[in-house]
Order: sequence, then structure tokens, then C-alpha cells
Amino acid sequence: MAAAAILPELATQVVIPVAAAVGIAFAVLQWALVSKVKLTPEPRRGEAGGAGAGKSGPSDYLIEEEEGLNDHNVVAKCAEIQTAISEGATSFLFTEYKYVGLFMSIFAILIFLFLGSVEGFSTKSQPCHYSKDKTCKPALANAIFSTIAFVLGAVTSLVSGFLGMKIATYANARTTLEARKGVGKAFITAFRSGAVMGFLLAASGLLVLYIAINLFGIYYGDDWEGLFEAITGYGLGGSSMALFGRVGGGIYTKAADVGADLVGKVERNIPEDDPRNPAVIADNVGDNVGDIAGMGSDLFGSYAESSCAALVVASISSFGINHEFTPMVYPLLVSSVGIIACLITTLFATDFFEIKAVSEIEPALKKQLIISTAVMTVGIALVSWLGLPYTFTIFNFGAQKTVQSWQLFLCVAVGLWAGLIIGFVTEYYTSNAYSPVQDVADSCRTGAATNVIFGLALGYKSVIIPIFAIAFSIFLSFSLAAMYGVAVAALGMLSTIATGLAIDAYGPISDNAGGIAEMAGMSHRIRERTDALDAAGNTTAAIGKGFAIGSAALVSLALFGAFVSRAAISTVDVLTPKVFIGLIVGAMLPYWFSAMTMKSVGSAALKMVEEVRRQFNTIPGLMEGTTKPDYATCVKISTDASIKEMIPPGALVMLTPLIVGILFGVETLSGVLAGALVSGVQIAISASNTGGAWDNAKKYIEAGASEHARTLGPKGSDPHKAAVIGDTIGDPLKDTSGPSLNILIKLMAVESLVFAPFFATHGGILFKLF
Amino acid sequence: MAAAAILPELATQVVIPVAAAVGIAFAVLQWALVSKVKLTPEPRRGEAGGAGAGKSGPSDYLIEEEEGLNDHNVVAKCAEIQTAISEGATSFLFTEYKYVGLFMSIFAILIFLFLGSVEGFSTKSQPCHYSKDKTCKPALANAIFSTIAFVLGAVTSLVSGFLGMKIATYANARTTLEARKGVGKAFITAFRSGAVMGFLLAASGLLVLYIAINLFGIYYGDDWEGLFEAITGYGLGGSSMALFGRVGGGIYTKAADVGADLVGKVERNIPEDDPRNPAVIADNVGDNVGDIAGMGSDLFGSYAESSCAALVVASISSFGINHEFTPMVYPLLVSSVGIIACLITTLFATDFFEIKAVSEIEPALKKQLIISTAVMTVGIALVSWLGLPYTFTIFNFGAQKTVQSWQLFLCVAVGLWAGLIIGFVTEYYTSNAYSPVQDVADSCRTGAATNVIFGLALGYKSVIIPIFAIAFSIFLSFSLAAMYGVAVAALGMLSTIATGLAIDAYGPISDNAGGIAEMAGMSHRIRERTDALDAAGNTTAAIGKGFAIGSAALVSLALFGAFVSRAAISTVDVLTPKVFIGLIVGAMLPYWFSAMTMKSVGSAALKMVEEVRRQFNTIPGLMEGTTKPDYATCVKISTDASIKEMIPPGALVMLTPLIVGILFGVETLSGVLAGALVSGVQIAISASNTGGAWDNAKKYIEAGASEHARTLGPKGSDPHKAAVIGDTIGDPLKDTSGPSLNILIKLMAVESLVFAPFFATHGGILFKLF
Repeated sequence: MAAAAILPELATQVVIPVAAAVGIAFAVLQWALVSKVKLTPEPRRGEAGGAGAGKSGPSDYLIEEEEGLNDHNVVAKCAEIQTAISEGATSFLFTEYKYVGLFMSIFAILIFLFLGSVEGFSTKSQPCHYSKDKTCKPALANAIFSTIAFVLGAVTSLVSGFLGMKIATYANARTTLEARKGVGKAFITAFRSGAVMGFLLAASGLLVLYIAINLFGIYYGDDWEGLFEAITGYGLGGSSMALFGRVGGGIYTKAADVGADLVGKVERNIPEDDPRNPAVIADNVGDNVGDIAGMGSDLFGSYAESSCAALVVASISSFGINHEFTPMVYPLLVSSVGIIACLITTLFATDFFEIKAVSEIEPALKKQLIISTAVMTVGIALVSWLGLPYTFTIFNFGAQKTVQSWQLFLCVAVGLWAGLIIGFVTEYYTSNAYSPVQDVADSCRTGAATNVIFGLALGYKSVIIPIFAIAFSIFLSFSLAAMYGVAVAALGMLSTIATGLAIDAYGPISDNAGGIAEMAGMSHRIRERTDALDAAGNTTAAIGKGFAIGSAALVSLALFGAFVSRAAISTVDVLTPKVFIGLIVGAMLPYWFSAMTMKSVGSAALKMVEEVRRQFNTIPGLMEGTTKPDYATCVKISTDASIKEMIPPGALVMLTPLIVGILFGVETLSGVLAGALVSGVQIAISASNTGGAWDNAKKYIEAGASEHARTLGPKGSDPHKAAVIGDTIGDPLKDTSGPSLNILIKLMAVESLVFAPFFATHGGILFKLF
Repeated sequence: MAAAAILPELATQVVIPVAAAVGIAFAVLQWALVSKVKLTPEPRRGEAGGAGAGKSGPSDYLIEEEEGLNDHNVVAKCAEIQTAISEGATSFLFTEYKYVGLFMSIFAILIFLFLGSVEGFSTKSQPCHYSKDKTCKPALANAIFSTIAFVLGAVTSLVSGFLGMKIATYANARTTLEARKGVGKAFITAFRSGAVMGFLLAASGLLVLYIAINLFGIYYGDDWEGLFEAITGYGLGGSSMALFGRVGGGIYTKAADVGADLVGKVERNIPEDDPRNPAVIADNVGDNVGDIAGMGSDLFGSYAESSCAALVVASISSFGINHEFTPMVYPLLVSSVGIIACLITTLFATDFFEIKAVSEIEPALKKQLIISTAVMTVGIALVSWLGLPYTFTIFNFGAQKTVQSWQLFLCVAVGLWAGLIIGFVTEYYTSNAYSPVQDVADSCRTGAATNVIFGLALGYKSVIIPIFAIAFSIFLSFSLAAMYGVAVAALGMLSTIATGLAIDAYGPISDNAGGIAEMAGMSHRIRERTDALDAAGNTTAAIGKGFAIGSAALVSLALFGAFVSRAAISTVDVLTPKVFIGLIVGAMLPYWFSAMTMKSVGSAALKMVEEVRRQFNTIPGLMEGTTKPDYATCVKISTDASIKEMIPPGALVMLTPLIVGILFGVETLSGVLAGALVSGVQIAISASNTGGAWDNAKKYIEAGASEHARTLGPKGSDPHKAAVIGDTIGDPLKDTSGPSLNILIKLMAVESLVFAPFFATHGGILFKLF
């Protein structure tokens, strides 16, 4: 207990905001580089430079020949399409935020009322919850600051998603244009844009949290227990916003995608993203509001929650009790170092190496994962050495447990490396470079049914290793440093979030780039390049979801542990009726939620199909390409459907902890959280990977890159048709229900934690009555 | 504690075997009635009697006109096909039993060695485990008798499955022949045959258990604790056999079914069960080895386990301690009354009412569920009043809990009625008389993808109410009478097993009857009738699976509780790392298992497809019907695949508790059991219902009974093709992976219980090392 951390408080107060500022500056720099790709036709200057000249990096050496670089018409068309997508996405997000804003306001009032009622809105200070000999701020203060933190989290999440969308829609046409100069150029543009989002999000999440802690600290003073309890509202706000973003965006994008594919590809036999398809703009908008804005909000939520979970446990451990600032904000230091580590990693993709062929895309992205993990391991060691005292104690369900700094290093590192393993396994199961996806593609030979059977089996199988990785990290971190260990393991997995988001956002940007190429009528060669980028993007999207799910499992457990501590339950014994019924009902919730979201996508897609069919049947000259379709109606269908349909699943997740806590009390709620966690993780992983595998099995057949693939193709062959069916089924699995589930898990846990004081006082009325 | 049960021991010793004997006699009677339908052409006598004359019940009044009654050719053909199916099934089961027998022998040796090693194979008596002041038989005796009970359970399960198959293959052609005289006649034949199996199985399960208890009692004498601990081996044997039966049979039947459909229906556009299809015999054999023999073994296993779970808890409660025989065998008394209640219920289907139209089939089967539940409620009240003292104590994790007889009545009754609710919900979600399946059928309009999305969503949704019903019964029975309450609730759900099995076996018999009608070239009208029987059968199969899963959940929990008591763990706290990693890995096991079984079906189906295609392409005159296909090769493919592929999933389930128990110890194993239970139940229910719904959505389109259905049809239309794809995907879900999962849950729990003494002594070596 004697030794303090090496890093003095003042240094810590400097390091964190500086790291955040560096992250933001780097994001701005990347944006500036992307913006050098002009969307207005440039004056001709020589034959090799064109639109891309003056870029940083070795831009003179062009591997593939350039095409249509000076075709002004194409550039104008790309700019026009990009504007349409960007406007559609902005308009949808504003509509979505309007409705969600209403819901969130009501929820903010609930938080205030429920938490304020704990001590009957008294303004008097009270004995602290964990150390009864000290005086803490009243519950009313907790109510007010939790509500503020909630709003702050929600707004930060909203801004993160919105900025991500803006960047993505800014970058997609630029990626298309760069694809004319070769796959390497296009890759760098897409990747840089992803990096803008990644760094902006990681840095602003850190900065807002840092500022909030310092500002709240002015009021709370010495009462760190109360301060960090209030700060958990930040996680709740971030996650609530993420839930609606994911679900709403997910329904939007997949209604459009499924609807567009079912009529366009299956019935009319026109290519994906063909401009004659009335749903094509809605589809491309969807990628941005679902995969980009939704994903951004989601990972921001995970990041906020794992930080909050670690902080709230730390506040009642020796750091908090002894007011040691540097070790107290160790989670923020880890994130700070993470930004720097990711910055170095990014340079490997954009500046140190160059992609020269399609086959190098996936390895380059994989290298990003490995490099960031390796660099970050050193970073964690450094932070653990400098930022922590050699020995300290951690609160462990009523007792204090002695931990050493190298043990905490192990906790963070195990999370980080477990993330890498999950990433690799996900890649193995969803990339068409390996046998699992190739087997799925092969099963298309006998039709859609075997494709679906093999795809589902693949998804189920892909759960095994990630679960073992998660279980191992939980075991190690839990054993070494109790719930604090689990929380920092989650943080370790998310410490490379900037890189993770960069390679994740890269996917939808490439997808859109392909769509724009098709719509702008660019050549087959360019479409091939964007398709290759996109196929790698499907894999990275699955990897991103793997990270999101893995970290969600760890975060939820940490939050769950914090909740149990706060609710003053000593054990969560499965063999008590109250807990067991919670466990089995909790395990059911992900199914209920998935049923809702999948049905929503299905119904919305049916409406979309009818509209697209109607347009094909009634608008003369549409199939011939002489008339333009009515894109706006399709956009409206997706918008209306997602706004209407996101409320019930959202309400299910947001209200379950409240209802269970109030009616059945904290024991049953503990069961629900544990059940939802262990069951939801599995469905989430299998749904994401099944969907990703189907998508890439289809791309495998379309690309026809190997002898085997060519026996299954070409486009329009029976196996290809079967593959398209699998891809369509996978859409809601991988982009709507699957990735929303990790938010379900986290959100219920963080909500329970925030409301824990209320449940502990007023909960369980049903059992009290009988 | 003063009052004893009203029923004296002698009366109990009479009631149980008599009830079993009545059940067996009733089964024989039903068989005799079925056998009156002759498979040899009869001499002509007048115009209306024909093959069915002389049947019991109102046989003179024939509602629909009779067709081809005197066509000797058809009868001979039916007989010939039946023989082929029966021979195929017998030969497969013998092969299966050979391999399983080897596995089971090894496992029996393991049981003996592991349990014997607990006290180092000492033959000296030891202090009892729960009451240290008494002397109990040595661990070696437990090892020997557990092994014997294991073998007994396995053999009974094997015989149950085998007899069921024999009856089913005896009845299917007879049902076809009766279908010529009207749907009512066919229904009665199919239902009676199902009843033969139901009563035979329920009665023999009871009888063998009763005899074993009495015989083991000769050695054990006053040591009831040891006696009933050894008896649990009976449940393990029954369930192990059931696992291989379900998995092996499930792979067999679905490989054949999927293979036959993919080439026959999809590629060659020939009807289901067309005799030109080389896989058609294998398909029909599969129904009998999978759905009949597998289901029989499965439900027998559930029955044996719930009885054993109740008995083992009772033996350490006041009944056992005070040696009160009648209340001790209360579980057996409940089953005895159940046989009588089901006997009365059966008469309502076969004698009191008559089916006159297709639309009456489903209501008649539903009535069976309601009547049996109502009659049984009275029966339980009676048994609880007569067979239990008014007050007694139940062992509850180290303490004794006082319970009153009416409370135990509530426990049994809540299980019984929860079963009915699960049955109704299952019917609602899988019968094409209601909107969920009709919505799925409607979604076929936009192709296979939306069909699959809607079907998956339906399955997920269908989980909600059953889980609430299970949770409610667990909460009530757990609160009232701890683990004993849960065990008797499971028994309550299974108390109407004879009726449940009857309506369940009815399904595959009707399915086969339809197949035989098609193969024998009978008219379209007859095929329509058997199709209607079969559609109702899909629903009853789903209901049967619902019962199996619901009871499995309760049984597993009871066994789990008994295991925890026996392993002397005081709590299973989720918030300890050892338990939590068990929980999350346990929740993953159903996915791993499903991945294996689905992949197995997929691979085997691919092989089948190749063979069927080969035959169509190389055998001249096959499509024209002038040459016979080579049925035997297809039978061999299914046989080889299922034998080879059933081992890995079987080993996963059988070895997991051993590995976890030995390496990680009883806490982690507790987590695994709880995780597998709460996660497996959900997948099992959703998989069964999704599959059932797809099958009936297809039948809905084919039957074209409503205006809506006709807009989707006829056979061969695009929506119908989409529906066929859904049906094919559903096959492995509903008949292989789904129903095997409840065995996974139960088997791991009972195995843990049997090996508990070993794990408690030698388990957890990994944690002991570090």
C-alpha cells in the first residue's frame, strides 16, 4: 500500500488530454488527405498524375493501368450519387434522432426520478454506501449527475455515429474514383477514411469522459465513490443511443438490401447496385446509417461502458479510498496509449507498405490487427509500470483483494490477445480464402437448402474458439483482480478500438464505392477492384463484430459484478428459484429480441419488394434505363419501417431490467443478466459469422478466382442463385439481429448498475407482497 | 412427521405392477385391433365391408366412399413396400446397436472403475454420506449396482425404441389401406398404433424400474440412500442410448429425406415418395428409426431420469430416512395413475368419437392433450392424498424443508399444466391452421430467403411462452418443495407420456402411410387423406418435442440439484470465476453439438444427392418408371453416414462432464450444466418449431385448402419451390439437432450425478495442480 504510482497526478492530467488531442489531430490529417481526391473534374496535367497526384506516400508508382481518369462525366456522376447517398443518410439520421431523442428524454426523466427517490429527494449528505464511516453526497446528487452523464453519453454516441456517417459518405465516391488508378489507391482512401472515424471516436470518447470526470469532480470533491457512480450514466447513455442506432440502422439497411436483391438480382436478373433498381439508393444509404453510424455508436458504447465499469470498481478499491488519481484513471491511461499505438499501426497500412494486388488486401488488414496488438502490449506494460503502484487492493464482493501491477498488466493483455484470437477465428470462418466458406460455397451446388444448412452449421461452429478465448480471459482476469480485472480485460480488447473501427468502417465504404461504380456505369474492371475491397470488408466487418461481441461479454460481466456489489447481494446462486428463473428467462431474451428484429426486416423487405416490383411494372422504360426510378419512395419505406420497428425491440431491452428489478428484485435481475449474457454471446457470434460467410461464399462464386470457384459460377448459374439466397438470409442475421445483441447484453447490465440504488431500496415488490 | 400415508405398503406393492400390467395389456389389445387390418387381399364379401370389416367401433358407417378396396394388386404392393421398410429399419437398428453396444460397454466399465475407485475398491461398509451416524454399503457396491442399472436402462431404452419401430412399420401400410375407406379409419389405425408404443413404453419403463428397486433392495436392505443412488444409473443408461438413437436416427432420416427431396422434388420435379426416387425407401426407413425409435428412447430416458431424480432426493428426505415405502415410491405411483388416465383418454380418440373429416384431425389430437391433462389432474390429487403423509420433510441443499402433501400436488400439477401450455403454444406456432405458419407460407411469395427469415423469426418467437411456463413451474415447485418439487413437476409433465407418445408416433406412421400410398400408385384422393394426417402429424411431432424439451429442462434442473447435493457444494455462485467460465462454455455446447449434427446431415445429404443423381443419369428407364432404382445403395449411404457421424457428437456429450469434472472440478461442472440447460432449451424449442412451421407451410400451399393458400400454389409454383427449400432446411433442425439437444441437457446432468462421488473425491485436478 506504501508505494505510489511513478507517474505523478499532474503528468496524468497532461497525458490524457494530449493523447486525445493527438488522436483528433491525426483524424483531421487523414481527412485532409482523403479530401485531396477531388470530386470535381481536374484540369489535365500529363498522363499519369490526374486526380491522385500530390498525395502523400509513393503515389507515382501506379501498378495497374488507369482507366477513364479524365472522363468528366463519370466524376460528375459519382459526385451526384454521393450527394444523394449523403443526403439520404443525413435525413434519415435526423428523423431517427428526433424519435430517439424523445425516448431518451423520457428515460432521462425516469433516471432522475428513480434515483432521486432512493432517499426521497433529500438534499442531505448520507453515510457512504461502502465505507459507512465517511460522508457521501446525497442520492439526489447521484440522480442529477447520472442524468447529466446519461445525456452526455447519448450525445457523444450520437455525434460519433453521425460524424462516422459523414466521413463515410464523403469517402465512398472518392474511393470509387481512386479505384480507376488501381486497387492500392482505392484501398488507401477507404482505409484512411475508416481511420478518420476510428481516431475521432476513440479520442472524443476519451476526452469527453476525462472532462466529465474533472467537471463532476468539482462538485463531488472527495466523494469519489459518488462521482464514479454518477459517471456510469455515461455508459448507459452511450449504449442506449447505440441500441437504437444499431436496430434502427440495421432494419433500414437490410430492408433496403433484401428488398433490392430479391427483385433486382433474383427476379429481374440485373446486377447488384444497378441504377435501374429503385431501392439502390436506400441500400447504399443503409450501409452508412447501419454499418457505420450504428457500429460507431456501438463500439463507443462498449468503450464508455468498460471504462465506467473499471472506474466504478476502482473507486471503491484502494485507489479510490486513498484518492490516488493516476492509478484511479488507469483505464483512461490505457485508452490514451491505445490511441498512440493505433496511430503507429495505421502508418503501416497507409505509408510504410503499399497494396499492389487484390490478394494483398486481406493480409494487410490482418497485419493491422497483429501490429496494433503487439505495439499495444508494450504500451500496456508501460502504463502498468508507470501508472500503477506495485501493490494495491481491489474491491471483490465485500472484501479487498491484494493485486500487483504486473497482474493487472496480465488482465489487460489477456483481453487484448483474446480479441486478436477472436479476430483471427472470425477471419478464418468468414473469409473466402479458407475452407469453411469454400465448403459453404460448394454446398450451393445442391441448392439453397444445403447452403443454408452448411452456413448455419458454420456459424454454430465458429462460436467454439471465441467462447474458449473469452472464458480463458475471464478466468484469468477474474482470478487475478476480480471484477476490476474483467473490466480492464474488456478495456484491453477495446484498447485498439481506433484500428478496429478503421478496418471496420473500411468495409461499408468499399461496399458503397462498389455501388457507386456500378451506378456511375464504370467498367467491369473497376467493379472487380471494389468487389475485392468489399469482400475483404465483409471479413473485417465480421471481425469488428467479433471484437464488439467479445468485449461486450467482458464488459457486461464487469458491469454485472459492479451491479451485484452495488445492490449488496452476496452471491448469485443458480440454485435458488429466484435466480434460476431469471437465468432461463434471461437466456430467452436474445431470442425474443432476434425474433422481433428479424421479423421487422422481413416485413419491411416485403414492403420494399412490392414497391420495387410496382416501379418495374408501372414505370415505362425503367428496365431499359431510359427513365429514372423513384428512389425517394424506397428511402421513405426504409425510413418509416425502421423508425416504427425499432421501438418494440428497444423497449424490450430498456424496460426489462426496470420491470424485473422493480417486480422481482435484484436476485432475479442478476439471473436475467447472467442468462442474457451467456446465451446472447453465442447467438451474436454465430449470427454474424453465418451472415458473413454467406456473403463471402456468394462473392467467392462471383469472383471465380480459383478453379473450384469457376465450377460453381458464373453469376446467374444455379449455385450462384443458391448463394444469393443465403446472402439475403444472412443480411438481417449479420447486420440487424446479431450485432444488436451485444448491445442488449451490455445495456441491460449498465442499466441495472445505474438503477441499482433504486432496486436495492424499492425493488422486488412482487416478492414483498407474497 | 407423525401421520403416515393412507395407502399401506402392501397396497402400493400391488398397485404399481398392476398398473404396469394393465398398460401392457392395453397395448397388446390395441395391437390386436390394428392387426385386424389384413395385408393380404381378402375374399370379397358384399360391397362395404372389405378389409376393414369386423373392426371394433362404429365401422359400418363409412363417411367417404371407398376406393380400390378390392384391388389385390395394391394390397400386395403395400405389403411389399412395408416389408422393405421394416427390413431396412431392422437392419439399420441392428447395425446401430452393434456400434452403440460397444461404446456403452466401454462406458459401463468406466462407470464401474470410476465409482469403484472412490474408496479404492474397498468392500467395507462406510458411514453414510448424508447421515454420518448410519452405515451405508461401500462405494464398490454403488459401482456394481450403478453399472447394472446403467445396462438395464440402456437395454430398456433399446427395446423401447426397437418395439416402437416394429409397431410403426407394422402399422404404416395398414394405415394406407384404411385410408381407402376414409380419413377416419386411417386416423384410428395410425393412432392405435401410436398408442401401442405409448403404453408399452410407459408401462415397461415403470415395471423395470419397479422390479429393479425391489431386487436391488434385497442387497441394500435399509440403506435406501445407497439403493437410490445406484438406481440413477438407470436414467443414465436410458439417456445414453437415447442420445445415440436420436442422433444416429436423426442423421439417417434427414440425410435420406434431404437427399431425396433435393434431387426428386427440386431437380426432377417428381412428387415426394415417388417410387422412382432411389432414396425413397431410405427416407421411409428413416422416419421409423429416427422419429419413432429415437423419440421412444428419448422420452423413455426423460421418464427414467425424472423418476430417478425424484427418488434420489426422496431417499435423503424424511421418506427415505424413516423408510416409508409408499411416499418413497410416490413418483412411481404418479406414473401408475398416469397409465390409467391415458388409457381413459385414448378411448376418446378411438371409441367415443369418430373423425369424419380432415378438419377434425387436429382438434381430435388436441382434445387428447386436454382430456389427459384434466383426468390426470384428478389422478394426481388422488395419489397425493393417498400416497403421501400430510406433512413431511424434503432435503434442500443441506437442510430439511417441511412440505405438505397438497403442496406436492401443486408441484406435479404445475408441471402437467405447463406441459399442456407448451403443447398449445407449439401447436399454435406449427399448425397451418393459424396465422404464424400462414404468414411464413405467405412470405414464400418473395422467395426462399424471406421464407427462411420469417421461419427463423417464428422459431425464436415461439420460445417466449414455453420459457415463461417452464420458469413459472420451476419457481413454484422449487419454492414449495426444492429439488424434489422440480423433479415431480417434470414427472407431472411426463405423466401423460403414453398419450403424448401415441400422438407423437402417430405422425411418422402417417408420413410413412402417405409414402406407401404414393409408391403403391394409389389415387390422388388417398394421398390427400394421408397428407392431411401427416400435416397434423407434423404439429403433434412438434408438440411431442415441446414436451420432451420442457420436461428435459425440469428433469435436468432436478438432476443438477441432486448432483450439487451429492457433490457437497453449498452454492453455485455465478460470480466466481470457476462457475462463470463453466456457465458460458456450457451455453456454447448446444451450438457445438448442433454444428456437428447439422454438418453431418448436410454432408450425408450431399452424398445421397450424388448417388440419386447418378442413378437417374445412368439407369435407363428410371424416370419413365420402367426400371426399378437401386434402393439398397441409398440405404447403405444413410446407414454408413449415421453410424460414422453419430460418434463425435455423442462423444462430445458423454465426455464433457467427465473431462470438466476431472480437470476443473464440480463447481465448473455445475456452471456447465446450468449453462447448457438454459441455452440448450431455447435452441431446441426454436429449432423444432421452425422446422415444423416450414414443413406445414409447404403442406399448406400444397393442400390449397383456403383462398389464400391457393394464391400461393399449386405444387411447382415459385412460392411452393421456396417453401420446399424451407422444409428441407428445417429437416435437420427439427429432426436431428433440435430434439437431440434435450438429451444433451439431461444426459450431462444425469451423468454428473452418477459420477458425483468420483468427482467429489478425485475431481478438479487442474486447479489442485496450480
